[in-house]
Amino acid sequence: MQQTRKIIDLNSDVGESFGNYTIGLDEEVVPLISSANIACGYHAGDPAVMRRTVRLALANGVGPGAHPGLPDLMGFGRRAMDVSLDEIRDYVTYQVGALMAFTTAAGGKLQHVKPHGALYNMAVTNPAIWETVAEAMAAIDPDLILFVLGGANREALKAMGRRVGIRVACEFFADRAYNPDGSLVSRREPGAVIKDHDAAAARVLKMASEGRVTCINGEEIALSGETVCVHGDNPQALALVRQIRRTLEDAGVAIQPVGTFLQD
Amino acid sequence: MQQTRKIIDLNSDVGESFGNYTIGLDEEVVPLISSANIACGYHAGDPAVMRRTVRLALANGVGPGAHPGLPDLMGFGRRAMDVSLDEIRDYVTYQVGALMAFTTAAGGKLQHVKPHGALYNMAVTNPAIWETVAEAMAAIDPDLILFVLGGANREALKAMGRRVGIRVACEFFADRAYNPDGSLVSRREPGAVIKDHDAAAARVLKMASEGRVTCINGEEIALSGETVCVHGDNPQALALVRQIRRTLEDAGVAIQPVGTFLQD
Amino acid sequence: MQQTRKIIDLNSDVGESFGNYTIGLDEEVVPLISSANIACGYHAGDPAVMRRTVRLALANGVGPGAHPGLPDLMGFGRRAMDVSLDEIRDYVTYQVGALMAFTTAAGGKLQHVKPHGALYNMAVTNPAIWETVAEAMAAIDPDLILFVLGGANREALKAMGRRVGIRVACEFFADRAYNPDGSLVSRREPGAVIKDHDAAAARVLKMASEGRVTCINGEEIALSGETVCVHGDNPQALALVRQIRRTLEDAGVAIQPVGTFLQD
Amino acid sequence: MQQTRKIIDLNSDVGESFGNYTIGLDEEVVPLISSANIACGYHAGDPAVMRRTVRLALANGVGPGAHPGLPDLMGFGRRAMDVSLDEIRDYVTYQVGALMAFTTAAGGKLQHVKPHGALYNMAVTNPAIWETVAEAMAAIDPDLILFVLGGANREALKAMGRRVGIRVACEFFADRAYNPDGSLVSRREPGAVIKDHDAAAARVLKMASEGRVTCINGEEIALSGETVCVHGDNPQALALVRQIRRTLEDAGVAIQPVGTFLQD
Repeated sequence: MQQTRKIIDLNSDVGESFGNYTIGLDEEVVPLISSANIACGYHAGDPAVMRRTVRLALANGVGPGAHPGLPDLMGFGRRAMDVSLDEIRDYVTYQVGALMAFTTAAGGKLQHVKPHGALYNMAVTNPAIWETVAEAMAAIDPDLILFVLGGANREALKAMGRRVGIRVACEFFADRAYNPDGSLVSRREPGAVIKDHDAAAARVLKMASEGRVTCINGEEIALSGETVCVHGDNPQALALVRQIRRTLEDAGVAIQPVGTFLQD
Repeated sequence: MQQTRKIIDLNSDVGESFGNYTIGLDEEVVPLISSANIACGYHAGDPAVMRRTVRLALANGVGPGAHPGLPDLMGFGRRAMDVSLDEIRDYVTYQVGALMAFTTAAGGKLQHVKPHGALYNMAVTNPAIWETVAEAMAAIDPDLILFVLGGANREALKAMGRRVGIRVACEFFADRAYNPDGSLVSRREPGAVIKDHDAAAARVLKMASEGRVTCINGEEIALSGETVCVHGDNPQALALVRQIRRTLEDAGVAIQPVGTFLQD
Repeated sequence: MQQTRKIIDLNSDVGESFGNYTIGLDEEVVPLISSANIACGYHAGDPAVMRRTVRLALANGVGPGAHPGLPDLMGFGRRAMDVSLDEIRDYVTYQVGALMAFTTAAGGKLQHVKPHGALYNMAVTNPAIWETVAEAMAAIDPDLILFVLGGANREALKAMGRRVGIRVACEFFADRAYNPDGSLVSRREPGAVIKDHDAAAARVLKMASEGRVTCINGEEIALSGETVCVHGDNPQALALVRQIRRTLEDAGVAIQPVGTFLQD
Repeated sequence: MQQTRKIIDLNSDVGESFGNYTIGLDEEVVPLISSANIACGYHAGDPAVMRRTVRLALANGVGPGAHPGLPDLMGFGRRAMDVSLDEIRDYVTYQVGALMAFTTAAGGKLQHVKPHGALYNMAVTNPAIWETVAEAMAAIDPDLILFVLGGANREALKAMGRRVGIRVACEFFADRAYNPDGSLVSRREPGAVIKDHDAAAARVLKMASEGRVTCINGEEIALSGETVCVHGDNPQALALVRQIRRTLEDAGVAIQPVGTFLQD
């Protein structure tokens, strides 16, 4: 799957509206992506939004995924909390189960799980959290795929997935600069966010077709990812997603839900 | 199943603790019952409590059930809310899915769903709510059993279940007086709650073995129920459950999870 | 104040954003009104939004008011709940106190209280709720003004306010049709909402200057209100507010916070 | 106030019940203390509990205080969250305001503010949080007293209070061992909690009468506190409070709300 891959997944966070509050351009971004990370009611989303978003994803052939977060609606799940691994396991089980019910009710199948916000960031610095999330998933449905931030630790995370009994997909960030060690450049550093759409689309193509990325210092490194994280919360973000799609399609790279092509 | 039945289910509300707050004597009541109605985080319960309670039920051979309620933690789900049928469907889907994940993770299977508190009472006066809950259940898992307040409308609710595609179990209340039409005497009326343990246990036995109950006016009516609602929130309630068990066992009535014997 | 009044208050619901979610065009509508109904964290709003909205109101010479609602963030406080009068009293005390702290911290003074959504509608059909809210207010600060739906019961509500020890201001709805008894035409009836901006502005002027309104059946009745409810959640609503202001100013009617001119 | 003080305050966390959930023996502990730290609805407590607890405190001549916490009901406010100083300021303003309304409505006056749980612990390691809380308080009512963990930084915190414009009271923990630098021995260390009631009561007396405490290594240091933190959540804790009272009274030390004797 590595060198010759000509398939890539595009994922985006959706279903983040809540009650009377609307966020994101879900109707517009879902047709452009292949995997949907759907909020589950803890940091965003509510049961009605979950139902509608699952149906929107399925109607567009998009793989529905759970996007579990910390129980912090006021902070949108973006504030680190000192939760234990057991609490994380339970919170993930709860949210994945809730979303799975909507997927089942809509005649679909939950494809993946991507931790949201602070929970994702906490896992990046503490891999025991990736493993805890993986264990929670394996206990519910071993077909589920865990989205992680790949890089230097790609093989370690893949091995963890095999040990726990689930598949792991590594994410590539279309609009973020990378350090030579494969980690993301901190948002506090200059150049961390790539604003030029041409550059971002070219990077996605290079990673998808060659498994390589040019780092912030100009160095080129190997970096593999099966799914690319894109955004759909404003018209500019949508424009970037459209350009990435065009660039990939022009180069003959297929865009498909990660569950259709991920091997291990 | 009607006349010759010598099997009955005992159900109780458990898993109602939340965070640092403990309610109920779950460790003591679960071994005495055969079906557990487990709160799902809306009106009570949290993910850790759900995990522990599911495991407690399974370890005791008790059928785990979801006890979905209104999103009103402050009111413990006991206050009627003007929610739409669509909102009810979504809230039930969410909560049942969340609990199902814990049941699956523990190697068990969710047996039933019993609406909690105000949601239950709203369904009693508006049967469209029973049907909405049944539809939500059928879309998730048609093996699930819906607990309803039976009585004069028993056959209508059974027929609704067949139409929707799930089984319906009628509840009998051990400690509540009945009107001649098979409805419960309002708690505001004198004599509504039967405080004498001997009388309550004898009523359960009569209903379980003969399918009959003596109403508040002395009249005896036919009343069938497959599951008897008991309580476990204080030592007195526990004493009543123990006495009901003894009375049933002495009379040769088996106590089993409703899923093991319910026909249709 | 009755016949010769040439002063009117314009109030609008603001501060309804929450966490990462934005609702309403507060920055644009606040400079156009004279009283701001600020959500208090139960049905909408959060502490940061409350702080910012109070400061925005004070910076524009707008009277800050509390807009307490039911504890139902998911339903935006729009769903009736079966809460007791004691619960209402406590919820209002809590929310008014919270908002008052932000008003005090900003160097201002809380002017009024307007129940939100379902709580407002419940009070319209059950005046004991108006009285309960008034009592909660009087116990915190007898200078507070209660906004009510006036009409046929205007004098009764004013008398209630005097009895309890607070002032009562009656609301007029700029874009809603009235029945001959002074009640609002139900939104389910045709013609309930007045969409023509000229007509709506003319009605406000007639009520403000003559104390009269033309009802849905063409009949003209006496109807006095000290404050007019307008909206600021979309550009069209803003346009109506601007037209109402112009119409009033052209006719020499002053627009001022109700606390500056309300007598009793 | 230092050497000749023969007055001390006893404070305890109360009002932590929520909805249908009861925690703590408030009715029994409040008559034994002189200052009550009352939860404000974020990590514990609800409007009805706040109303009742404020009245209970006032009826017993106990100084009512706000006990604001992080917005984490599920974690009882005991989990550190990555909140900003602005968020802390807003959360404290909100909660103090809410409790103040109940105090005012009951005819009393809010005496103090003590951050709860993780917020308190975060302030201990980051004094900017004490200052932020103090600023929030000063903007609402400069008569409010802030409870802090005193020790080596006692004078620094007192100076901060003078700068901000509120009084600061230092807490002494009756049942916790101290390090020679005046900090608390971590609960993870052996001997951190003093379980012997005689020893705990003697320590309180020594601190109250001499301003000295014997540290975990046997060394005696100067340590002044105006208020002693005690607990009332179980019968054993109550027994300790009773013994502390007796020990103090036998030695002629008066127990009074800190607001009655705190100088600066």
